[in-house]
Amino acid sequence: MKKLFYPESIMVVGVSETPTNLGRNIVENLDRFHFKGQLYLVGMEGGNLNGRKIHARIEEVDTKVDLVVFLIPAPFIPEALEVCGKKGIRYAVIESGGFSEFGGENRRLDEQVVEIAKRWNIRFVGPNCISIINLENGVVLPFVLLDPGVLATGPVSFVAQSGGIVNSILRLWSNENLGVNKFISMGNKLNLDENDYLEFLISDQGTKTIGLYLESVSNGRRLMDLAASSQKPVVVIKSNTNTASNQIARFHTAALAGDDEVVSSALRQVGIHRVHNLQEMINAFKIFDLPLMKGPNLAVLSRSGGSAVMAADSAARYGFRLQPFSEDFLQYARKGARAGVIQMTNPLDLGDMFDLEFYREVMHRALQEEGIDGVLFSYAYLSGIDAMTTKHLILAAKEFSHFYQKPVILCMIPNFDEWFMMRRATDFPIFTEPEDALKALSISLTHYRTIVARESHPRTRFEPFTPKAQENTGRLPGIQGPGEVFELLRQYEIPVPAYRLVKDHEEAVQSAKIIGYPVALKTADSRVVHKTELGGVRLNIGDHHELKEAFQGIPGDRFLVQRMAGAGHEVFIGGKYDPEFGPVILFGMGGIFVEALNDVIIQVAPITEREAGEMIDGARGSVLPKGFRGGIKADLDALRQCLVRVSRLLYEHGEIQQLDINPLVVLAEGQGCQAVDARIFS
Amino acid sequence: MKKLFYPESIMVVGVSETPTNLGRNIVENLDRFHFKGQLYLVGMEGGNLNGRKIHARIEEVDTKVDLVVFLIPAPFIPEALEVCGKKGIRYAVIESGGFSEFGGENRRLDEQVVEIAKRWNIRFVGPNCISIINLENGVVLPFVLLDPGVLATGPVSFVAQSGGIVNSILRLWSNENLGVNKFISMGNKLNLDENDYLEFLISDQGTKTIGLYLESVSNGRRLMDLAASSQKPVVVIKSNTNTASNQIARFHTAALAGDDEVVSSALRQVGIHRVHNLQEMINAFKIFDLPLMKGPNLAVLSRSGGSAVMAADSAARYGFRLQPFSEDFLQYARKGARAGVIQMTNPLDLGDMFDLEFYREVMHRALQEEGIDGVLFSYAYLSGIDAMTTKHLILAAKEFSHFYQKPVILCMIPNFDEWFMMRRATDFPIFTEPEDALKALSISLTHYRTIVARESHPRTRFEPFTPKAQENTGRLPGIQGPGEVFELLRQYEIPVPAYRLVKDHEEAVQSAKIIGYPVALKTADSRVVHKTELGGVRLNIGDHHELKEAFQGIPGDRFLVQRMAGAGHEVFIGGKYDPEFGPVILFGMGGIFVEALNDVIIQVAPITEREAGEMIDGARGSVLPKGFRGGIKADLDALRQCLVRVSRLLYEHGEIQQLDINPLVVLAEGQGCQAVDARIFS
Repeated sequence: MKKLFYPESIMVVGVSETPTNLGRNIVENLDRFHFKGQLYLVGMEGGNLNGRKIHARIEEVDTKVDLVVFLIPAPFIPEALEVCGKKGIRYAVIESGGFSEFGGENRRLDEQVVEIAKRWNIRFVGPNCISIINLENGVVLPFVLLDPGVLATGPVSFVAQSGGIVNSILRLWSNENLGVNKFISMGNKLNLDENDYLEFLISDQGTKTIGLYLESVSNGRRLMDLAASSQKPVVVIKSNTNTASNQIARFHTAALAGDDEVVSSALRQVGIHRVHNLQEMINAFKIFDLPLMKGPNLAVLSRSGGSAVMAADSAARYGFRLQPFSEDFLQYARKGARAGVIQMTNPLDLGDMFDLEFYREVMHRALQEEGIDGVLFSYAYLSGIDAMTTKHLILAAKEFSHFYQKPVILCMIPNFDEWFMMRRATDFPIFTEPEDALKALSISLTHYRTIVARESHPRTRFEPFTPKAQENTGRLPGIQGPGEVFELLRQYEIPVPAYRLVKDHEEAVQSAKIIGYPVALKTADSRVVHKTELGGVRLNIGDHHELKEAFQGIPGDRFLVQRMAGAGHEVFIGGKYDPEFGPVILFGMGGIFVEALNDVIIQVAPITEREAGEMIDGARGSVLPKGFRGGIKADLDALRQCLVRVSRLLYEHGEIQQLDINPLVVLAEGQGCQAVDARIFS
Repeated sequence: MKKLFYPESIMVVGVSETPTNLGRNIVENLDRFHFKGQLYLVGMEGGNLNGRKIHARIEEVDTKVDLVVFLIPAPFIPEALEVCGKKGIRYAVIESGGFSEFGGENRRLDEQVVEIAKRWNIRFVGPNCISIINLENGVVLPFVLLDPGVLATGPVSFVAQSGGIVNSILRLWSNENLGVNKFISMGNKLNLDENDYLEFLISDQGTKTIGLYLESVSNGRRLMDLAASSQKPVVVIKSNTNTASNQIARFHTAALAGDDEVVSSALRQVGIHRVHNLQEMINAFKIFDLPLMKGPNLAVLSRSGGSAVMAADSAARYGFRLQPFSEDFLQYARKGARAGVIQMTNPLDLGDMFDLEFYREVMHRALQEEGIDGVLFSYAYLSGIDAMTTKHLILAAKEFSHFYQKPVILCMIPNFDEWFMMRRATDFPIFTEPEDALKALSISLTHYRTIVARESHPRTRFEPFTPKAQENTGRLPGIQGPGEVFELLRQYEIPVPAYRLVKDHEEAVQSAKIIGYPVALKTADSRVVHKTELGGVRLNIGDHHELKEAFQGIPGDRFLVQRMAGAGHEVFIGGKYDPEFGPVILFGMGGIFVEALNDVIIQVAPITEREAGEMIDGARGSVLPKGFRGGIKADLDALRQCLVRVSRLLYEHGEIQQLDINPLVVLAEGQGCQAVDARIFS
């Protein structure tokens, strides 16, 4: 795919001499950004542009071309693409709109283009996009004119499903005077999708940080697998969270794991950083433009007491620690701060007397403090008066930050006429407030920890997943009977209390004799969904006599006699098939944690034992299984294994739409777990 | 206090001809901002400044003066203030630092100044502050030079405990080209505090929106009372949230109601809007510069599909509804959108063809749509090309917004060279992203609802509160015995199960006979805190025999025999004395909601029955008392009354540091509540 971003020759199809022609802008952009390769223009009216001939037909260009860019009406694309295929062109950008985004009647055009590309082995961007930008070599293909004066080359690449968002991010980012590497507007994703671009950018030398804007996820597992394979930070906005999910509400899982919760969990699982708006994306880019934050210890310097207090609040909010400064450091600070009013704490209020050398040196010494992982300097400078010297401070922050490989966060609020002057003083990121900066800094720390954790643990692979066809199960879709469900659990060594399926009272008595009392009697009629509410469950049956009584009035024509589980902690394990990420597993403390609080942890299946442990630790009520208020200590080993096995079951049975194991009783240490009740909808 | 902000004559003390003299800047500011009143300068070296005589002594000024401003070393202030008092000056601003903020040894200076001011009935600002600004009449007193070119007069007034924060807010706000009314840097608050300024600003005609930055709260109840008396929005940053609270951890209340949670709850209770950073404060000011949002129905217009999707996500996040547009409206939009690619939904993607008249008219018609309460236009304009016409769109938005008295939110992301140009096109607020704008818009809607609710309900008064001295109780501070606690609850008609205090088994049997079985036996030894863990509680004792058995091994030398409460829902009621807001009451669902989830609702006591209802509705597990999963419906009337009574108890017993009623059992409808266990630390 490198040829797409590093072509030696480009053909632009759809160029004319007419001043309003949009194809001209593509040519103009390539010239403005000094594209050095060969450039061929094609347009049916022919003519000349900027000293270049406009060929009337693609066939007239008789040299080898790496990349073709189309900006001609959609109906002409299939034929033109066919010609390019014949010519041996393997990469295309289709900027034209007018495909199925116009409505279903254009779906035929989609199919034609996809088919032709497949036949000629062409990979293409779009259609319906503002296309790609590579600032490294001037491959700037959008049909709107861009200004090289405001776009610097740098380490950030960005892929978006919306041209408007590409524009907005590009503008916000270049307003910060920070550099762009490759920007991609994917359009309708008929051929190349976010995963293809992500794979390329992970291997791309010039790209250090990757941003994605997605409205839908093409293949969630591939996305996860790619992100987990790379140390580069991947920051994602996944929008379109507002789509009502219409799943079957009688399963807890449906209500608990909405599509958006699954997205958040899946991204977190592989260390992708999800943010929720453009400014957060920009702040994350800025943070990753600095060395990573490698621990929680922060030094806060400030020129105003109020801002020091607010920075300390924010630091606590995002989990940073402000450890005391050393006596040496404080001695220097005391000497340097002329006003003498400062309190010798971290955060350190330096007073408002401007002294560049003192500020520089305090910053420097703070970075040298033992255990300090980063420095935040909230720098409320005086407009006009301090502007020139402030630029020197910015340069010092940049130099120190690189030298010590620790992030230095500069926060300042200039007047409007100096706002961008400060940001454009150099290519060092400037923040406005400590709050935003520290929120971003917590992403940097998370990223560092993710990378370290990956080194010590085998990497989970997220293999592509295809749901099994329904016919494999030989049954109509619907709720499975409890016998089938328990049998499936047993196949995966998920412990279930001994049980027998029975038709009537006599069989029940025989079974109970074998299983041993106390037993539970449950209706096994899959039509009875809310068993408990309908009187379909009798618990703690102690003998034959009670068993006979229990049969009075219990609904259904098949029944389950089951040994009562021992005393323990009740938890919930669920599963569902997510359209974007395939099978996912859910875990929560039982009872109201799940029913009233909707509190569950979600991960994409299958999971490792370590991930199972993280799920248990992450659940809100998870203080319980560790032994709560004098209660018994629970068998966490067994619980972890149960989670791993359920996740494997879900992964290998893609026909399962939803699974509830509720409750799973976790017995005392060494005694295992028991799946007391379970339902499957497939 | 009007004379402080609207003086007819000002005397500045501490002026000299020396170029570096800071007092000169005060005089210069007054001239720059065209202060029209009399101005007298005083400085011990005498001389002349800008054609005005500098008097060597205050006494030389022999006319009436409304306001004196001091910028002389702290040790000279007492004498100077004394002279001013004699001269009949009643308002002063002390900008000088060097009081107790330097350290305890200067506390004597504080006391002197306070005493002199009291004697002469002088109200003063500061010391240690950058003082006050009133743009209405040019009373601009800071000792740093300000630029009238960047400060417009408008409806926002701001009070801060930190000069740095005043500067930052002033800069951020004037960068938006929006107008300032009065800005106050309070300094050390030796005389006037935030409540005094708030009271004045509430009565001040020019002030429509009030911002506060507080690091501590001087008198929380007065703050609440003032805010509740006004329809003007009050937006607060309360920082310094990071102070470790060292209360007695064995009471739930201590862990549940940290000082910062109390602040948030107290502010919310009277409709003060708490925000957490400067940008949120600015966004709130911007929103209150527009008409209030009077309902949840929002129309979203966008020039990019991606931004439409993100705006819809944000709208859902902040509780807004995007109702479908009318057929008439859609017909117009369909006709006007030339590209024909738009989907006819709310959010409406207008396509990116710029057409000012169409955009204007769509905005106009959206405002006319039935039921629409506000319009958001996410307007990703093209730099350079659309800049001039965009200004017309901003003007149209301003005009429509005023005419229809509905907020119009314009979001745009210009290039850096047009960023402030757009913001300075007129005095209409411009937002960057829908996310921030809609977060602020939800504050506007909350404010509208608060004001409407106030009209239909009697206003709660938050009377000043002085904690009762410990000697009133005639006891040493500590944990009260259960007998005392239950007696106190009964005094306030908070129902408790019948009980008797007994010394031994014989008395217990006698008591149980009267009370009736089943009973509980509890140790009444106040030294036994964790009764349950230490085996100090025996429940469900059915007869004399069991009662005798229960006495085996129960610790203590005094005991409580108590009738078992009926079956019901267990909830938690707590109380504590907060240093800033006085007695507060807590409510939460019992059990793990309180113990594992720390989930409680807090309000400042006393509360009304309506507020009690809001507490019950607000608690996270509050689905329970309304009848959960076929459970009994609880007696909510009784619960509300209980809350009101406990709040009155707390208010009238200021010696109570902490109170736990846990559990309070709420019985079935019509059957009331029962406080089963209660503890008080006072």
